[in-house]
Amino acid sequence: MKRRDFFRNSSLTVVAGSLFSPFGAFAGTESSGIVRKSGTTAKNIIFMVSDGMSTGTLNMASLLLQRKEGRQSHWMQLYIDNKAKRALMDTASANSFVTDSAASSSAWGGGVRVNNGSLNANPDGSFNKPILQKFKEAGKSVGCVTSVPITHATPAGFCINNKSRGDQNDIALQYLPLKFDVMMGGGQDYFDPAKRKDKDDVYKKFDEAGYVTVKNKKELFNLPASETKPLLGVFADNGLPFSVDHQSNATLRDQVPTLAEMTKHAIERLKKNKKGFVMQVEGGKVDWAAHSNDSAGLLYDQIAFDDAIKVAIDFAEQDKETLVIITTDHGNANPGLFSGSMTEKNFDYMHHFKHSNDWVLNGINKNSTASQVIERLEEAQGYAIKKAEAESLLKHYTVLNEEGLYNPKKLPFKELGQIQTAYTSIGWAGMDHSGDYVELAMFGPGSELLKPFVKNTDLHNFMLDVTEVRQRL
Amino acid sequence: MKRRDFFRNSSLTVVAGSLFSPFGAFAGTESSGIVRKSGTTAKNIIFMVSDGMSTGTLNMASLLLQRKEGRQSHWMQLYIDNKAKRALMDTASANSFVTDSAASSSAWGGGVRVNNGSLNANPDGSFNKPILQKFKEAGKSVGCVTSVPITHATPAGFCINNKSRGDQNDIALQYLPLKFDVMMGGGQDYFDPAKRKDKDDVYKKFDEAGYVTVKNKKELFNLPASETKPLLGVFADNGLPFSVDHQSNATLRDQVPTLAEMTKHAIERLKKNKKGFVMQVEGGKVDWAAHSNDSAGLLYDQIAFDDAIKVAIDFAEQDKETLVIITTDHGNANPGLFSGSMTEKNFDYMHHFKHSNDWVLNGINKNSTASQVIERLEEAQGYAIKKAEAESLLKHYTVLNEEGLYNPKKLPFKELGQIQTAYTSIGWAGMDHSGDYVELAMFGPGSELLKPFVKNTDLHNFMLDVTEVRQRL
Repeated sequence: MKRRDFFRNSSLTVVAGSLFSPFGAFAGTESSGIVRKSGTTAKNIIFMVSDGMSTGTLNMASLLLQRKEGRQSHWMQLYIDNKAKRALMDTASANSFVTDSAASSSAWGGGVRVNNGSLNANPDGSFNKPILQKFKEAGKSVGCVTSVPITHATPAGFCINNKSRGDQNDIALQYLPLKFDVMMGGGQDYFDPAKRKDKDDVYKKFDEAGYVTVKNKKELFNLPASETKPLLGVFADNGLPFSVDHQSNATLRDQVPTLAEMTKHAIERLKKNKKGFVMQVEGGKVDWAAHSNDSAGLLYDQIAFDDAIKVAIDFAEQDKETLVIITTDHGNANPGLFSGSMTEKNFDYMHHFKHSNDWVLNGINKNSTASQVIERLEEAQGYAIKKAEAESLLKHYTVLNEEGLYNPKKLPFKELGQIQTAYTSIGWAGMDHSGDYVELAMFGPGSELLKPFVKNTDLHNFMLDVTEVRQRL
Repeated sequence: MKRRDFFRNSSLTVVAGSLFSPFGAFAGTESSGIVRKSGTTAKNIIFMVSDGMSTGTLNMASLLLQRKEGRQSHWMQLYIDNKAKRALMDTASANSFVTDSAASSSAWGGGVRVNNGSLNANPDGSFNKPILQKFKEAGKSVGCVTSVPITHATPAGFCINNKSRGDQNDIALQYLPLKFDVMMGGGQDYFDPAKRKDKDDVYKKFDEAGYVTVKNKKELFNLPASETKPLLGVFADNGLPFSVDHQSNATLRDQVPTLAEMTKHAIERLKKNKKGFVMQVEGGKVDWAAHSNDSAGLLYDQIAFDDAIKVAIDFAEQDKETLVIITTDHGNANPGLFSGSMTEKNFDYMHHFKHSNDWVLNGINKNSTASQVIERLEEAQGYAIKKAEAESLLKHYTVLNEEGLYNPKKLPFKELGQIQTAYTSIGWAGMDHSGDYVELAMFGPGSELLKPFVKNTDLHNFMLDVTEVRQRL
C-alpha cells in the first residue's frame, strides 16, 4: 500500500462545520478556538466500542445480569445513577445507510465518512489523519485493546490509513513505526511468521523497533511496572475466545486475559504520562456473535465489555480528568427477547450456559449422530433440542452451506439460532449490520456538551476539542 | 364487571418511593410536598405513545423521511435541535419482562405494575386509580385519541379499571360515566348496537348522557368551536385504516381523520380549560403492523404518529405550559434495515408504497393465481416477487394457517414479511412484543427533571408532580 503524506486535515473543519452543530459550546468555534465552560477539559479519553451492539443486545445483557446476579449492568447503572449523558448516534457511512466497522471507526478516527471497507481513505485516494496519531503527536500516550485481532477494523480506524480493511498483514506492519504505547488483542495470524502467508517475522520487527511483546496472560501480568517500552500483546491466532467459552475453560482462562484485564493493564501503563492518554477499548466479538446469531456468545461478550466499562469508570471516577465514551459502531442482527408464556423460564437457561454456538457447532462433524448433537448442546446450554432439530443441523455438515462473515467453515449458525429461539425466546432479525441509530454514553469532563443526537463523525472533533488538542494541531 | 370504590392510592407513594429515584427534584419529597425549581410546573400534558415501537421502527421512519422528503422526522429533529430530554425506559410488567399494552399503559396510568392483560387491576383484585380520573377530579380537561379502538388497552389504561383488556364491550360502557372531554379513535364494534353482541345501543347512551358523538371526519370538522359537551368520535369498526392505505384511498381520506388531525382537534377543545388538560395520543397501529411484520403499515403509521408529534410540539412551543412526553410502551418485532449491496435501492421502494401488506393479503383468496398475487403486490409496493414466492403465499389460503394477534383471517403475514426482506432489506426478529428498553423523550416544562433511565411506573407520579396535582389529591 502506498502511504500518502498529504492528510486532509484542512478539510476536516469544513466537513464538521457543515453538519448541524451537535455540541453547544463548540458551535461556530471552528476558526476562533474553543469557547468552553470551566470543567470541560479532559486530559484522558477512554473510547469504548461494543462492536455491532443492537439495542436488544444491551438490554438483554442487562436483563441477564438482573436475573443471574441481581444487579444491573454497569452501563445501565450509570444511567440509573444519573452519571452519564446520552445521545443517539447516526452511524451511516459515505456509501451506505448501513456502515461496516471500518467506515464507522474511520468516522470517529478521521472525522470523515468513508466508504465501507476503507480505513480513513477517501474515494479520491486521499487520507484522513487517524486520531491516535494526532493525540500521539500532541504528546499523549495512546493505545487500543480489543477482543478481535488488533489489526481488525475498529482499532485500525483509530490508528492507520488503508483503502482495504482486509489487508491485515499490511496493517500489522503499519502499526510498527507508530510506536503506540499499548496495542493488545488477538491476531497472531498477522504477526507470526509461521502463520503469515509471506512468512515475515513481524514480531521480530516489533522487538527490533523497541517494543515489548507478550503472547499470554502470564507474560502480560509479569511485565514490570517500570516497563515503559511500547507494548504489543497478542493472545490468540485470530479473535479471542468468546467469553462464555473462556470462562468454562481453565487453559483459556490461564492464557488469555479478559477485556477488563487488558483495559486495566492498559490504563495503568498509559496513565503514567503527565500529558494524558487516549485509548480505544473494543468488545469486538459482540459483533461476531451477532453475525452468527449466537446468543451465548453475544450476551456474555456484552457482559465482558460491561466489565471493562467498570474498569474505565472506576478509574475515571478517581481520576476526574478522564472522559469515558461508551457506544457501538452499528447495530447487528437486532435481537430481542420475545413475549410468550415461557419467556422468563427460557431466558433463565442462559444463566447456566457454558459454551457458545460457535463451540457447539465446531464440535460436530458429518459423522456425528443426532444423539451426540443433542448431548453436546445440552452440555453447553442446558436444554435438549428435538431429534428432528438435531438432524436438520447435521444436514448442513454434508451439503454445501451458505457463506457468512466470520464463518469460514460454513457452519449452520443461522439454523441453530432459529432452533434456539424456541428454547431461549431470543429472536434475530438478520445476520448482518443494521442501520439503527445507536446508543452513545459519556461520563466525565466534557460529557455535559453532548447533545441528544450526533453523527459518528462529530465525535472526532469532539475528542480533539475536549482535550484542547485541536487548537494545537 | 364489579367496580371497587377502594383505590389503592395510599400505596402508590410507597411503591414509587421504593424504586430508585428517577427524578432529581422529586426525590424524597413523597410526604413533604414537591421541591421544585422554578419553571418546572406544567399546566398541560400531551402523552404520546407509538405503540410497539422498536428502535428500528423509529430509525427507519426517520430514514424514510430523509430519503423521500429530505428532512428528518419531527421526533429526531427535537433531538438535533437539542429541545428534548431523553431516557431509556424499562417496560416490564408485574409478571413478565415483556409487557403487553394493557400492563404498560396501567404502569403509566395507575403507577403500579400489573399482570399482562390487566387494566389497573392488581392480582389481589384491588384497583389503582387511573390517571385521567385523577386529573379530571383536579379540574383539568382530559382525553384520548388513538388509531385503534378507543376501547383498546392503551387508552383504557389511562381511563378505567378492568381485570381484562379483552372486555371492550364493557370498557365502552365504563367510559360513559367518566364524561372525559375527548375520546376519539376506532371501535364502532363496541358502540354500535348492530355490531355489539348484546345489541346494546351504546351510542344512544352516550347521547343521552350528554356527549356529542361523531362518526366521520366531516362531522368532526363541522363541530362548532363553541361546542363544550364531551366528545366521542368513532371512525372505524375496529382499528383505523393503516396510514399508507388511507393516503391511497380518497373515500378513506374523506371519512377518517388522521392521528394528527384528531390530535389537533382535541388540543383545540381541551385547551379552553383554564385549569389545563391532559391527553393521551396513541399511534396504535404501529403495534399492529409490527405484529404482522408489515413494513408499509409500520413505517407510514410511524410517520403519521410523527405528524401528530409536530401538532403537539407546535402547540407546546406556543403555549409554553405544556409538557409533551413521547415514547412507546414496548418494542415489537425488532425490525431493522440490513446491510447489503442493494440496501439503498431496496429501501427506496418504500417511497412509492401505496398499500400495506394487510391490504395486499386481504385482496387475495384461494382462487387467486400467482400472476394476480404478483400484480397486486407490484401495484401496492412497486416490485415484482417471483412466481415461486407468490405460490408459497397462495398455499396459505388453502391450508390452515397459524394464529396470530390481530390476524383473525390467519393470513400469511409472516411469509410475506420474509419474502419482502429480499426486496426491502428490512428484517424482523419476531412477531410479538420484545423486552427492549425503549426510547422516551420529553419536551417542555418539567422535562429537565427527567433522568436517563426510568421505569414505566415512574411516569405516573412524574405527571402528577409536574402538574402539582399530586399534592392536592
